[in-house]
Amino acid sequence: MKKVGVAILGLGVVGGGTYRILTEHREMYKKCHKIDIAVEAVLERNSEKALALGIEPEKIAKNIQEICSNPDVDIVVEVMGGVEPAKSFVLDCLYAGKSVVTSNKELFCKYSHELEVAAKKNHCGLFYEASCVGGVPVIRALLDNLQGNKILSMMGIINGTTNYILTKMSAEGSDYKEVLKEAQKLGYAEANPTADVEGYDATYKLSILSSLAFHTKIPYTKIYREGITDIEVTDIEYGKKFGYALKLLAIGKNGESGIEVRVHPSFIKNTHPLAGVNDSYNAVFITGDSVEDVMLYGRGAGALPTGSAIVGDIIYCATHSNYQYLTFENTEDASPSTKFVDNFESAYYLRLNATDRSGVLAKVAAIFAKCKISVAQMTQENSRAADGTVPLIFITHVTRENNVTKAVQMISECEEVAKVAAVIRVVS
Amino acid sequence: MKKVGVAILGLGVVGGGTYRILTEHREMYKKCHKIDIAVEAVLERNSEKALALGIEPEKIAKNIQEICSNPDVDIVVEVMGGVEPAKSFVLDCLYAGKSVVTSNKELFCKYSHELEVAAKKNHCGLFYEASCVGGVPVIRALLDNLQGNKILSMMGIINGTTNYILTKMSAEGSDYKEVLKEAQKLGYAEANPTADVEGYDATYKLSILSSLAFHTKIPYTKIYREGITDIEVTDIEYGKKFGYALKLLAIGKNGESGIEVRVHPSFIKNTHPLAGVNDSYNAVFITGDSVEDVMLYGRGAGALPTGSAIVGDIIYCATHSNYQYLTFENTEDASPSTKFVDNFESAYYLRLNATDRSGVLAKVAAIFAKCKISVAQMTQENSRAADGTVPLIFITHVTRENNVTKAVQMISECEEVAKVAAVIRVVS
Repeated sequence: MKKVGVAILGLGVVGGGTYRILTEHREMYKKCHKIDIAVEAVLERNSEKALALGIEPEKIAKNIQEICSNPDVDIVVEVMGGVEPAKSFVLDCLYAGKSVVTSNKELFCKYSHELEVAAKKNHCGLFYEASCVGGVPVIRALLDNLQGNKILSMMGIINGTTNYILTKMSAEGSDYKEVLKEAQKLGYAEANPTADVEGYDATYKLSILSSLAFHTKIPYTKIYREGITDIEVTDIEYGKKFGYALKLLAIGKNGESGIEVRVHPSFIKNTHPLAGVNDSYNAVFITGDSVEDVMLYGRGAGALPTGSAIVGDIIYCATHSNYQYLTFENTEDASPSTKFVDNFESAYYLRLNATDRSGVLAKVAAIFAKCKISVAQMTQENSRAADGTVPLIFITHVTRENNVTKAVQMISECEEVAKVAAVIRVVS
Repeated sequence: MKKVGVAILGLGVVGGGTYRILTEHREMYKKCHKIDIAVEAVLERNSEKALALGIEPEKIAKNIQEICSNPDVDIVVEVMGGVEPAKSFVLDCLYAGKSVVTSNKELFCKYSHELEVAAKKNHCGLFYEASCVGGVPVIRALLDNLQGNKILSMMGIINGTTNYILTKMSAEGSDYKEVLKEAQKLGYAEANPTADVEGYDATYKLSILSSLAFHTKIPYTKIYREGITDIEVTDIEYGKKFGYALKLLAIGKNGESGIEVRVHPSFIKNTHPLAGVNDSYNAVFITGDSVEDVMLYGRGAGALPTGSAIVGDIIYCATHSNYQYLTFENTEDASPSTKFVDNFESAYYLRLNATDRSGVLAKVAAIFAKCKISVAQMTQENSRAADGTVPLIFITHVTRENNVTKAVQMISECEEVAKVAAVIRVVS
């Protein structure tokens, strides 16, 4: 029986989960896949973590060189996160002829080119299913199932922390800050939540997924990004009345005028399959020109779901002799021939705090008309705020981004409007 | 650039869709996958169909031997359906050294063993993603993504015709026969709908999917099967009041007492992700011991969605040199060591037509108690039928199949009960 030696770099949540899956299922893999997968080494500064998992002390490597020179190690799992030292370690392993399985979206998104060059040069595999959407098989679906399609668009809920926070805000009517604290207590959000709540994590993943979908490098720096920190629960409530759920969506489109990539809070119709994706669940909704709509749904994070993706890659790597590399020109930057759309089209939800006197609506409507924005729905709520203003809410028809920017600017300058309190895109 | 010659056996809906995708995307595949895929031959009795698609007359083969001996053909797409002559043709092609991509669930489910032996012997690939759930990437997910899990259960809506019919019955309150006629007119149901509405098609697909999930051959003959032809719209309406949607579910479980496989109409809670899968959409909800819940959703049929799966397999076959075969002992029959559970556990919905007099409920309740069935909910409707009976509806707690069979028998024998009008399983 083929023996497969694995080394794990980092025994955090995902590293520990991977170790548990591999050791608990070792007999099953022998039986079902005819391979004997053994964890031969780990690299972890905190050796207590390794010992607590039951790893023999002699398997705890002192440094990356011990892993690279260990002839029993065939595949290295990198689950440290962050760019350095993960990047140097992965390159060291590839140059030592070890295949690499990584869950590191930031690393793969920023350095896929350099890592792939090293992998190809050394005839090693480089696998990264675990980098996006945990155990949900979206990367392989794009590589091996939907590759006959021209992918027209993808919309994803690809960050569990923000989806958990928005779901709780919606269900409980609580404020962002309150829910964030609770999420941190429960381990759904980090002590420093910036990467998640400001949408960086989602841009890394969207960079990887849209590059695969559109067959060209989409650097994360090209992705428009807006987080959820300014979301007020009152807008979630108003949105419900219009039949919308609020989600942090990662959107990629490949249209006639170019590629459009963006991460921002979005209202989506309650009847859309993504609207029902709640708590820390994730989903990617992909539209191809042949396959039409496909949605892949599941746990986007966690020790075992992400471990499942890593172990899937390990078994794939161990049972396939020819490794697959990205077939598009995988440079660090976008290809000069790729056109990006900045001034994208969207419908909008706008909430204004206006003085409660006649003529305000007429004035605002005139501004919309001037900016070529057509209003689909309007409500004026009776509830008067402490400052004496009343909320005026508009849902627009699809328009261009810069029309809205202009209108918001003009409306802000109206003396009857105290504040443009919320501007949220409505997607369909 | 690598040239890949394709032959298509059968130019029905899926064959025509596959041809269209391949020809329309030829330049895209050259650019994105560095392969030039050309349709070199077709086999179709009705040559008008081929000519209408724009296929040159010299590419229309007279018989399978012309395809087998054509050196330009590398991959044969079998989309004829049915067992013969598809089976002989596929074997001929494999023996001639051609890899085969098939959408034929009946063929693959019944003869996967014989076909795989032939494929291995001749170093050919045998691909069948299109056999289950159209363009939804469920087969590759089981083979290449979730293979590190012990799959605990799968529940699927894997037949588009029945899901369309049940969705319409539910939305419009129409009778089965009426909706079937409409579905036939629209092309969602065949003139002879038996394979779909009686659940045969779903058992073929469940046989394939559960064999992959549970790593052992699950013959379709081992699958409990019940179609939707006896479903009355009144039960769909009552189900709604209890918060349930009615779906034809294909269920596979791998528990401590063995493997359980079944296809039958099922009530499922409205909040379950499968409950929102409507019309001709399909979905498979898989639970693994590491990945937890994953759902794959999309079009389960149709020219282009199924064509998408076929073209995905063609590109995979053309870009991978080592083919993958089933790793479990893939015999025609189940392994003697596989234990199947017949007397499975389920909650139940029962509707009785009872005479409207006191004491009926007490009598029925006594029977339930005798049969060790615990009742979760009961409603007695006021509406009196033409025969003077009133409907009594019970939802039971989870119990064993044979307890319910016994109870139904005993209740039928009560003089106060005109009829046990419906017995529908409730899954969770």
